[in-house]
Amino acid sequence: MQRNVAGFLNAMVGLDVVTGQEVAERFERDESHCPPQRPVAVVFAHTESDVMRVFQAASDWKVPVTPSGARTGKCGAAIAAKDGVLLSFEKMNAILSIDVEDMTATAQPGVVLKDLYAAVEKVGLFYPPDPNSWETCSLGGNVACNAGGPSALKYGVTGQYVLQMNWVLPDGRFIRVGRRTFKGVAGYDLTHLFVGSEGTLGVATEIVLKLLPTPRAVRTALFSFSSLRSAIEAGRQIFALGVLPRALELFDDVAVRAVRPHIDAVGLSAGAQAALIVELDGGSDDALLDELSRCVRATDPLETTVAGDQGQRAKIWNVRQSLSAALRRLHGLKISEDIVLPRSKVLTGIERFKAAGLAADLTVATYGHLGDGNLHTNVCFASETDRPRVESFVARMMEEVISLGGTVSGEHGIGLSKRAFLLSELGRAQYEVQRELRDFFDPSQISNWGKVFR
Amino acid sequence: MQRNVAGFLNAMVGLDVVTGQEVAERFERDESHCPPQRPVAVVFAHTESDVMRVFQAASDWKVPVTPSGARTGKCGAAIAAKDGVLLSFEKMNAILSIDVEDMTATAQPGVVLKDLYAAVEKVGLFYPPDPNSWETCSLGGNVACNAGGPSALKYGVTGQYVLQMNWVLPDGRFIRVGRRTFKGVAGYDLTHLFVGSEGTLGVATEIVLKLLPTPRAVRTALFSFSSLRSAIEAGRQIFALGVLPRALELFDDVAVRAVRPHIDAVGLSAGAQAALIVELDGGSDDALLDELSRCVRATDPLETTVAGDQGQRAKIWNVRQSLSAALRRLHGLKISEDIVLPRSKVLTGIERFKAAGLAADLTVATYGHLGDGNLHTNVCFASETDRPRVESFVARMMEEVISLGGTVSGEHGIGLSKRAFLLSELGRAQYEVQRELRDFFDPSQISNWGKVFR
Repeated sequence: MQRNVAGFLNAMVGLDVVTGQEVAERFERDESHCPPQRPVAVVFAHTESDVMRVFQAASDWKVPVTPSGARTGKCGAAIAAKDGVLLSFEKMNAILSIDVEDMTATAQPGVVLKDLYAAVEKVGLFYPPDPNSWETCSLGGNVACNAGGPSALKYGVTGQYVLQMNWVLPDGRFIRVGRRTFKGVAGYDLTHLFVGSEGTLGVATEIVLKLLPTPRAVRTALFSFSSLRSAIEAGRQIFALGVLPRALELFDDVAVRAVRPHIDAVGLSAGAQAALIVELDGGSDDALLDELSRCVRATDPLETTVAGDQGQRAKIWNVRQSLSAALRRLHGLKISEDIVLPRSKVLTGIERFKAAGLAADLTVATYGHLGDGNLHTNVCFASETDRPRVESFVARMMEEVISLGGTVSGEHGIGLSKRAFLLSELGRAQYEVQRELRDFFDPSQISNWGKVFR
Repeated sequence: MQRNVAGFLNAMVGLDVVTGQEVAERFERDESHCPPQRPVAVVFAHTESDVMRVFQAASDWKVPVTPSGARTGKCGAAIAAKDGVLLSFEKMNAILSIDVEDMTATAQPGVVLKDLYAAVEKVGLFYPPDPNSWETCSLGGNVACNAGGPSALKYGVTGQYVLQMNWVLPDGRFIRVGRRTFKGVAGYDLTHLFVGSEGTLGVATEIVLKLLPTPRAVRTALFSFSSLRSAIEAGRQIFALGVLPRALELFDDVAVRAVRPHIDAVGLSAGAQAALIVELDGGSDDALLDELSRCVRATDPLETTVAGDQGQRAKIWNVRQSLSAALRRLHGLKISEDIVLPRSKVLTGIERFKAAGLAADLTVATYGHLGDGNLHTNVCFASETDRPRVESFVARMMEEVISLGGTVSGEHGIGLSKRAFLLSELGRAQYEVQRELRDFFDPSQISNWGKVFR
């Protein structure tokens, strides 16, 4: 493919384009551990037609375009290709409308999730997806990676809330996919083919989201346990009660130790080897939480803390939110994974990773969304010289995940960092079909070229 | 395309193939009003490799293959192409496994939904999708058309429960798409591209479904109203309470009159001009239903009936299930539609269709899923000679639906009966992309050829 960056840049005259040193500093990394790459230019889109012009010129001059949102991604999907440009959506960040009666919000991809939450709450509605980075991440990135979060257990991931999208294909053509109604089966579901495609099939320029009534009576509790096995068993018992919690977050022993200073603040036992945050909402009342607490206590929790008010609820969730930083304080460096295991394999998986870590003299901490089996397994280490060794350890862990019937990414995406495992997970036949499908949409190798597939 | 049926049939030796008169009788129609078409043969698949053989031979001899489930579809998607064969899944109807801890069920496409419900309930789990035909329809058809039902308001449609599928592509290649875990973003979401593709992108041969804990405390109530406007306003008030009901089913005046004999049995007012069935589940308790009832009564219901036991609950739902037959008893013939309107357009839409019906001397009855705007608008008539006139009336109604921002099919599909409206709904650009995508997967024009697109 004969790529011509100069030709592309000439075609960008009149658009908001930045090149040079400042680009390198702000745009060469995301929140992954992938090697940085300096884009030859960053184009800031202000309108839908800017986006179409970028992709049309990129097709003419065969220049790879990498979409860029808030750069909070954890798999390197927003890192530029070599000799490629970035298309930044940070200036397309408007909330265009919120329709209370239709229960929809229409927004541009650059909107920060925190701002969307605020606007939706103001009119008494609810947008459930809650990735941990909600204070800084943007909607376009959530759509590109099909972001999840704790509430996915009850409410599902981002894709479940995307009704309609204005979409620019890799060749610059514009289509509008999906519909504003909550149901609809007319034609193929391109919306959900495009959600999670990480920029490789084009980009969203406008997104219509489904909203829900704000759930009543959110109730949050933190339970500590004398063993990981008891904590997992408690999760099983909660489902058996006929309850689908809004969140069911697990912490293993290393995670509990790492957040100890925070956990003390909400009264968790010193000897805890595991913990669970359980959150209920909907029609749920205190009687249900009482019943649930009794059921959990029967499985051996050391201590139970029920949030009595919004402040205590925030304290409990702070345990979860501060965990990643707490682990880093304790161990210096870590590689954080985003695996999903079938529920029945969660205990086996965590135990095997821990044992393998012990054998390799590495600390392995696991926390995450017990309810749907989406675990953030962190391999901790102290020095950069250890990184290659840790990376091979993680690679072996990923093969173990696949052999347990799991997946190498639950909510972060494949990007650059997981490309090596995709073939093994999908199998040759499906991998080839998916790559042919990418080529069908992007024969000129433009749209986030080099990501997802190798 | 040079099609060769004889060549295809020769290649079928050893498979379970039926030709001749009995075929014409059992397999020339579905539950749509589409013209019947006699397949040249019906192949009954017994195994996955039977299905692969059929598609491979069909590709070799260029013979169109129409997948056939329980033939309960309402859009003609299971009617054979001219000189085409049917591939019946009715003998691939096994429930292969139910994994309680993973909360999954694995089944073949021919399984009847009723049997799946029974198997899942036996182990204390819940499969939410509830199309009205659940006693006779099969899972493969549900997947092909992405079937909905009343509970879709809270629980979503079939696609939301499909985790993984064994899939045979139109050229006979086998791939396994999706994963058994509840979350996962590795690669493209082919699962949800294929769900709802009505057999035009290939067929499922095995389906892994997500299950949920059985919800606690199902509570059902029937409200009658003195006007349609009050009933719709009551729906709005329920959402404002922060309640997402499991079902919120609307009946207009014609529908209420049609089911009068049944409605009497649950004590609905004689003067009712509209009615709502409201069903809550989950943590919901009687206190919540009481609060909801007070809120609805404030909007003017003539009468409220709360089901006190399972028998009364069945009586209330019988009103809904018997409606289609009741309307036919009253008016002889009807064309039943499956539109979705944005919530804010529901009253406008129903009133416009009624007024247009009045002007054209046709009775228009509307009932359906108020919560998500998915309405079954029925145009009633007495004699077959009226059909062409009624069909033009319906065509105008569909254009009105599209202009109100709605869709021509919420849960039944496009098949043959809605093909005429798809271009108008999708717009030229998206329509062309979708047709190119179909051709990408099915260049030999095999897999349910002639459906969805014209």
